Amino acid sequence: MTAYTRADFLKMDQADPLAPCRERFLLRNGLIYLDGNSLGALPAAAPERMQHAVTREWGMDLISSWNVNRWIDLPQRVGDRIGALVGAAPGQAVAGDSTSVNLFKLLAAALKMAPEGRRVILSDPGNFPTDLYMVQGLRELVGENRCELRLVDETEITGALTDDVALVMLTHVNFRSGRMHDMQAVTRAVQASGALMLWDLSHSAGAVPVDLDGCNADFAVGCGYKYLNGGPGAPAFLYVAARHRERVSQPLAGWMGHESPFVFDINYAPAAGVSRYLCGTPPVLGMLMLETALESCWDGVDMAQVREKSLRLGDLFIELVEKRCAGHGFTLASPRKQALRGSQVSFAHPDGYAIMQALIKADVVGDFRAPDLLRFGFTPLYTRYVDIWDAVDRLTAIMQQRSWDKPEFHQRAAVT
Amino acid sequence: MTAYTRADFLKMDQADPLAPCRERFLLRNGLIYLDGNSLGALPAAAPERMQHAVTREWGMDLISSWNVNRWIDLPQRVGDRIGALVGAAPGQAVAGDSTSVNLFKLLAAALKMAPEGRRVILSDPGNFPTDLYMVQGLRELVGENRCELRLVDETEITGALTDDVALVMLTHVNFRSGRMHDMQAVTRAVQASGALMLWDLSHSAGAVPVDLDGCNADFAVGCGYKYLNGGPGAPAFLYVAARHRERVSQPLAGWMGHESPFVFDINYAPAAGVSRYLCGTPPVLGMLMLETALESCWDGVDMAQVREKSLRLGDLFIELVEKRCAGHGFTLASPRKQALRGSQVSFAHPDGYAIMQALIKADVVGDFRAPDLLRFGFTPLYTRYVDIWDAVDRLTAIMQQRSWDKPEFHQRAAVT
Repeated sequence: MTAYTRADFLKMDQADPLAPCRERFLLRNGLIYLDGNSLGALPAAAPERMQHAVTREWGMDLISSWNVNRWIDLPQRVGDRIGALVGAAPGQAVAGDSTSVNLFKLLAAALKMAPEGRRVILSDPGNFPTDLYMVQGLRELVGENRCELRLVDETEITGALTDDVALVMLTHVNFRSGRMHDMQAVTRAVQASGALMLWDLSHSAGAVPVDLDGCNADFAVGCGYKYLNGGPGAPAFLYVAARHRERVSQPLAGWMGHESPFVFDINYAPAAGVSRYLCGTPPVLGMLMLETALESCWDGVDMAQVREKSLRLGDLFIELVEKRCAGHGFTLASPRKQALRGSQVSFAHPDGYAIMQALIKADVVGDFRAPDLLRFGFTPLYTRYVDIWDAVDRLTAIMQQRSWDKPEFHQRAAVT
Repeated sequence: MTAYTRADFLKMDQADPLAPCRERFLLRNGLIYLDGNSLGALPAAAPERMQHAVTREWGMDLISSWNVNRWIDLPQRVGDRIGALVGAAPGQAVAGDSTSVNLFKLLAAALKMAPEGRRVILSDPGNFPTDLYMVQGLRELVGENRCELRLVDETEITGALTDDVALVMLTHVNFRSGRMHDMQAVTRAVQASGALMLWDLSHSAGAVPVDLDGCNADFAVGCGYKYLNGGPGAPAFLYVAARHRERVSQPLAGWMGHESPFVFDINYAPAAGVSRYLCGTPPVLGMLMLETALESCWDGVDMAQVREKSLRLGDLFIELVEKRCAGHGFTLASPRKQALRGSQVSFAHPDGYAIMQALIKADVVGDFRAPDLLRFGFTPLYTRYVDIWDAVDRLTAIMQQRSWDKPEFHQRAAVT
């Protein structure tokens, strides 16, 4: 390894084709924000857009906004924009509800599509818990004879494709380790076995190149408030491949998924296309923020450039931590190999919680995931190379001075 | 009837104890907004609060806002505030998701609580369609042997309480006619028959006095964006009586309803109390708007005063339309009797759609509900008596000049 200096990192920023994208966001001076994988930063266009939405669209246009300001087709419009970022042709994705609720719709739909005898949903125990919980909730509702949750290690999925598996549900990039599946290969193996494939893209959309159509994925869900920068609790999204869209109806049969919501018929009739996967009235203000982020931050972004910078940021971070914090008890908990890594790097440390609190106090914001992981997300649109240098610099000082070992840094907050 | 003049209505406004509440909202001059039962008006405090939420909480505090700005307990906090408006002691209501999604949780929970042999959900065909659709979606998922939807006219509910009924699901105030059920009497009859009672309060919360605890209701849902003024697509709410809260878990078992969301256990364990009825990450910005509306518009409001003014506005509206538009083909479609009427008045007219478009053009905003209803909502916090006079005045001119009968007023919009 080269003996880097801070000046080297400033030079990398000067040469970075994505550097101008940082101006698309509002970030406090001095803050090094490495938690965009939990809540994405504020798009610079958001405050004004929101003010317009509140004072003009809600306040003045009121109910007419559903037509004149096109609130009514936000779910499809925003869905298509997200689709463009994850390799989905228009008409296969909609935005709305939470990732959890969207999972429920797709899990139920997949079980309904599955051939007789296939009732297992296969996943891995390291998946984001809500994904597993939603299967458990569905299983309890429909009964174990119609839905079984089976968990095998993420590396053993393709060896576990028995003929009772209806659906494989995996998070593309693991929320703890950042380990990334080979979407193409896994999808192919799953489908070759006769099962359907659902990808949770919560840590992928806007983070790594994804090609849902190219991989022939069946279903996907994902989060709007992480790498997509849609704002706190932003609407989530779901994807149903065109070939499956109209095969079944899904159980959260709300009026916005009806073929004619304003006819007020008493019988549910699912809408044409992916719109049948909508449920209730969409959260308009949140949807407008997500749309603003997609337009103002993501329009025209080359995901190959994002990926290249993301991997380089991660490599440099690993290299600097391992060198400068050597002997301080950190163990890399993310894949070193680029092809296996998403856009985050985690290190394990027995005092991870307190160290992260000390880092946050030093204006380097990552987060902690139980039991011992310090998690750092890289968001190439606004993370600079020099941020990596400075973050590790501050971490090194904290470790050398042992300044993390204060009672205040051990106090657990409600949200970690 | 007295021969009213506009001056009489101005006098009523002078004597109105709720008149100062109008300043809690931002409304365009000249606009007469009688559609607060579809989308409530903008609270005057909302733009500044939203700007703070976006630029400061999201933009500057970022992920720490879950703790420092208390985003994490928004669902319970907002739920309790709504509870105070509908007669629910704290700890029984949470805000979040849509009304439709919340219905699904409660329908499934109610079926799980029901004794063996009770599998019918009884409702009326005039209920808001999404309520019926959600039962149909659930029925399709669990099978007809576990869930049946039975519909009888709203006036015949208490005569239809056979011993296979698990749950009666009614909207307290009908969205078309404004007809209101006697919540106390119906709940008592339903429970005496051994069934559970679920009230949809979408057209009641903030519109009429409701006493969920006093009526011994089992479950309720309701809408945040109508009379509560929470903004377009605001989070909805649900209520589970304390005695039922922990009897079962509900199927939309997302991580926010887990007893320890940040332990990331792989097994779902429902939270204590009504929090187990939460699912995914809450829509923070929408939730903050709903909280702002509840604080800035509803705090300290006496629902008895709201009810008194609402009924008087309705009576006067009916009286003026029937007198001044006599012979123009309107038929009252709402109960004349106060005790049977919520906070809206509907008139049927074969050309209802075009007439409503002409009215909107004249800056009197109500809405149209198929097949032939002109619907007018009264929101006593910001509807003035003189608005009633002026609205009928403009309607009368439209009818006398037959100015509604233009091609432009017959063109149907996406949202009616």
